[in-house]
Amino acid sequence: MVKRYLQVMTLDEVFALLAREFSCTPSTETVPLESASGRITVRPVFGTYSVPEIHLAAMDGIAVVSAETRGASEQHPVTLNRVARVNTGNVVPPGYDAVIMIEDVWETDGKYTIRKSAGPWQHVRPAGEDLAESEMVMPSHHRIRPHETGALATYGITELEVITVEIGLVPTGSELVAAGTRPAPGQVVESNTVMAQAMLEFTGARCTRYPFVEDKPDLIRDAVKRACQENDIVIVSAGSSAGTKDYTADVIAGLGTLLVHGIATRPGKPAIIGNVDNKPVFGLPGYPLSALTVIRELVMPFLRNYGLFVSEPAIIRAGITSAIPKEIGSDEFVLCTLGRVGNRWTVSPRSKGAGVQMSAVRANAYLRVPRESEGFNAGDLVDARLMVPAEEAENALLITGSHDPVLDHLADLLRPTGVSLISTHRGSMGGIIALKKDECHAAPTHLLSPDGTYNTAYIRKYLPGTATDLICIAGRQQGIVSHDGLSLPDLRGRSFINRQKGSGTRMLLDYELKKAGIDPSSLPGFEREVTTHIAVALAVKSGEADAGMCVYSAAKALGLPFVPVAQERYELAIRREHREDPRIRALIQALQSGEFKEILNRLGGYDTTETGILRSVE
Amino acid sequence: MVKRYLQVMTLDEVFALLAREFSCTPSTETVPLESASGRITVRPVFGTYSVPEIHLAAMDGIAVVSAETRGASEQHPVTLNRVARVNTGNVVPPGYDAVIMIEDVWETDGKYTIRKSAGPWQHVRPAGEDLAESEMVMPSHHRIRPHETGALATYGITELEVITVEIGLVPTGSELVAAGTRPAPGQVVESNTVMAQAMLEFTGARCTRYPFVEDKPDLIRDAVKRACQENDIVIVSAGSSAGTKDYTADVIAGLGTLLVHGIATRPGKPAIIGNVDNKPVFGLPGYPLSALTVIRELVMPFLRNYGLFVSEPAIIRAGITSAIPKEIGSDEFVLCTLGRVGNRWTVSPRSKGAGVQMSAVRANAYLRVPRESEGFNAGDLVDARLMVPAEEAENALLITGSHDPVLDHLADLLRPTGVSLISTHRGSMGGIIALKKDECHAAPTHLLSPDGTYNTAYIRKYLPGTATDLICIAGRQQGIVSHDGLSLPDLRGRSFINRQKGSGTRMLLDYELKKAGIDPSSLPGFEREVTTHIAVALAVKSGEADAGMCVYSAAKALGLPFVPVAQERYELAIRREHREDPRIRALIQALQSGEFKEILNRLGGYDTTETGILRSVE
Repeated sequence: MVKRYLQVMTLDEVFALLAREFSCTPSTETVPLESASGRITVRPVFGTYSVPEIHLAAMDGIAVVSAETRGASEQHPVTLNRVARVNTGNVVPPGYDAVIMIEDVWETDGKYTIRKSAGPWQHVRPAGEDLAESEMVMPSHHRIRPHETGALATYGITELEVITVEIGLVPTGSELVAAGTRPAPGQVVESNTVMAQAMLEFTGARCTRYPFVEDKPDLIRDAVKRACQENDIVIVSAGSSAGTKDYTADVIAGLGTLLVHGIATRPGKPAIIGNVDNKPVFGLPGYPLSALTVIRELVMPFLRNYGLFVSEPAIIRAGITSAIPKEIGSDEFVLCTLGRVGNRWTVSPRSKGAGVQMSAVRANAYLRVPRESEGFNAGDLVDARLMVPAEEAENALLITGSHDPVLDHLADLLRPTGVSLISTHRGSMGGIIALKKDECHAAPTHLLSPDGTYNTAYIRKYLPGTATDLICIAGRQQGIVSHDGLSLPDLRGRSFINRQKGSGTRMLLDYELKKAGIDPSSLPGFEREVTTHIAVALAVKSGEADAGMCVYSAAKALGLPFVPVAQERYELAIRREHREDPRIRALIQALQSGEFKEILNRLGGYDTTETGILRSVE
Repeated sequence: MVKRYLQVMTLDEVFALLAREFSCTPSTETVPLESASGRITVRPVFGTYSVPEIHLAAMDGIAVVSAETRGASEQHPVTLNRVARVNTGNVVPPGYDAVIMIEDVWETDGKYTIRKSAGPWQHVRPAGEDLAESEMVMPSHHRIRPHETGALATYGITELEVITVEIGLVPTGSELVAAGTRPAPGQVVESNTVMAQAMLEFTGARCTRYPFVEDKPDLIRDAVKRACQENDIVIVSAGSSAGTKDYTADVIAGLGTLLVHGIATRPGKPAIIGNVDNKPVFGLPGYPLSALTVIRELVMPFLRNYGLFVSEPAIIRAGITSAIPKEIGSDEFVLCTLGRVGNRWTVSPRSKGAGVQMSAVRANAYLRVPRESEGFNAGDLVDARLMVPAEEAENALLITGSHDPVLDHLADLLRPTGVSLISTHRGSMGGIIALKKDECHAAPTHLLSPDGTYNTAYIRKYLPGTATDLICIAGRQQGIVSHDGLSLPDLRGRSFINRQKGSGTRMLLDYELKKAGIDPSSLPGFEREVTTHIAVALAVKSGEADAGMCVYSAAKALGLPFVPVAQERYELAIRREHREDPRIRALIQALQSGEFKEILNRLGGYDTTETGILRSVE
């Protein structure tokens, strides 16, 4: 009972089909001038009176008849007969054709004397100087900029007819609960229509989110039918795939025509497009990052056909840090971390599953790997599409290496300075390698050498000849997290959740197990690896494993017992050549601040004696 | 009784002073998630539960114990004992640690057979994969992007505390009327606070516009005092200069401390900054473009001190078409028209007086001429700051030359294609010169040669060797506009409003006057020049002149009698090398459309027989 996609179309084919199939007449609404910024005019706007309507003084001074001022000079002052006192903005009385600034006028007994002649129309704002009656102020399809509301007010315009597109959002799925309700096992918070609304309304569309519809074809049909009657476009969230409970395609086929089932993008493949009563109906995949891709790459560009403004992302050309292999045939969209290290822009893919929404929160750029390409090789120069303003990307501080929850707090501490710290978890060794390739600004690391020292030996080995500095984050306790307060010797025979190879925690664990004479094969689950301390603690909390090794703060955050094993030196490695980079300077300043020590003490498990201390590795 | 500015400070000095003087603690407000896009977080946001909280199936299929699948292959299918049917998103029951896709499973009599083994955790979304309980979702001072509302909903966040700045806007001036009231002579529509509100609220600030205050120091004092009590920042519009009715500085000095009176910018010099009860109070100059400059260059950047996000304009390096001379000492801001002609970006200053708000409507960029500079020379490469999205600047179609109201309608016709036509009025000869210098895409022109032909002789003379095409806009009637239906021979002794030298209309007039034997010196006002047809008609309508020469549509728009003098060939000259530019193609298509002829016929005074016809000048 495996259903198949009707057809898989490329994005280009889909847009061509949409253009053929739908006339895309937008709705309109009348908004007061105060709310018109960013909206698009339906028709040209004309002036109904001239501005100014009559000649005005452009300066404080006296209105004069210019012919009567001829010949005035320092040697031959002229006392004027006909004069009218005016301030800026006053009407220049009929018959007068120039204004002389008050600074250039000598008044005695009500008589005005000048020492310089005035040219005709000097310091006069002639009628219609700004706008002439009946003149076009702005054309149709013009996006009103905030500052233009001032001009429009001046021209007597108090409301405007603007373009909108009414979009009905229909969330389907028996498992849905509303945001704010903690989902029971098997339930899911409905977030796709929340996201769709926010993204689409930024373009000037107006969205209606309909009540949740259970996974029953009749109910979905009724909801879609109603939404089609009430909107210009309908978007049905989830049920767009080809599974047993995916009814969207059948419902659309029943109400109208199913045009597309499956688009050649990844993520986003299970998208649907149909025509119900000449209204486009989109079926959105359920996975949030798939839904995000379909909204961004398909629905939003389509809104341009209605005259709405949808901006293109700014592009920065950057070297990619790891390969993205792919097969020919689909456009692939990959969330990334982008930053400028030294003079080089560097971009790292960061997306994992289509359900990991944090990837879209952490990402500041994305890549489009074109359909006809077999992917990118590490080091290729690629077009990174910005998801943040250019100045925010400029200020990205890339931290790659060993993970610790305190890095998020460091990001929080730095944010008011304008620096946006983005951390990628690749373990200490991953960080050292990234630093070696100059693909990050700083690498958090805690690598123990057999002689008991931390970090320096690895820096010397992997970055020979590169002047490197180490800044101490803290002395950090690593220990065993469990439900039962287990210590290292208690681990034998207990199921275990491990950290990935190359992480400092893993190396420390291997070292301590060996020292204690415990064979890793006596720990069931030892091969299962996760990449963060909190993931270790969580696996323990959920009962998936009896124990794991992590930092104290992670155990504390989840309320689990923690038995210390060792204190290690957790440091940030940076290349000395970047020391004067303002982002690095801000980073060091934050690490050396009293506020940062307070955070460490509050989180617990950190020895702050050496926090902020800088040492050089030669 | 001439008051002086207290001191004139540079922008840099002003920002340093503001940073010293004010602590800039923002206000906060709680907004529902649906309205959080674009707002800035006050504090970090943490997850309160893990997502997912429990292992979920990532595929439709069967949950299995991975160890029991070992050894399964095409040759050795394995029939499983322990199996649970799961759909995507279902809970993986305890004890199971992998999911096999339904496509890879053969079911017979309730027994499931597989032909491939499953690795541990295959197709399983482990608990906490997206977000772990207590993990930081986003730091403080983070600008929420529309797509992030989806993630926030998933994490159970339904409202957020965000930064705002409460700004009180106090409009002063006895001459003010509200937008929508047609101003009587001497009255002015209050537009500065309308504009300020729209510009400032785009950053997340919240503005209150207070009622108009008459030019009476006591009333202004009461209004400013109240606004200071109710807001974080107060902006007083107008009265900031040093004239007899400029009370803002004295009022601020009376309520607190006057810190700055006069900043070294142009426009915008008469700005004021004061401190009233530790609240910054800004005095805004009355002229709209001065006010715009002070808001954009002073107030908006200052809002960054409160944590609001204010973006920097994007910059395009462009060749400037005419010099901007200036004296050292002030930063000068000049509104401009920017476009790409061929492969070269070109930028033309367009601002006139500080009261001409249409300059800010027509401009798509502005220049900052630095304080220490003596200005720009024609041809200099300068930084043009964009006032429109980059893609709109890319699509700017620059039209320079002879003005006609129909050009605005052409702009309206082109806008839905994405092309934004920007016309600059410099007369036919000005257009030919701009075309010669490759500083515009097309030059509207109607230049009569003694042999009675139009345009070709001038093109040959001024663009020798440059292949040029002429596209006919229309045969156009020029004639005498007056209150009394005057014809050319009636003009003697009547006051006249003229067009500028170099304009085709002026050349035609000179030609026709000579033919009729009328001496220009017999026309009082002949030396007064305006640059558009509508300005001519307006001068007549306002009684400033008895007559002038213009096109029929301008006279008709103002309801004035029109007596034809001649029909001329009004054409657009373009360089052939640009013919394949998509903007030029769209332009030609619009000129050749039926819609355009309809517009010409509706406006009247145009012979459309040859409209859209293209001829080449070799």
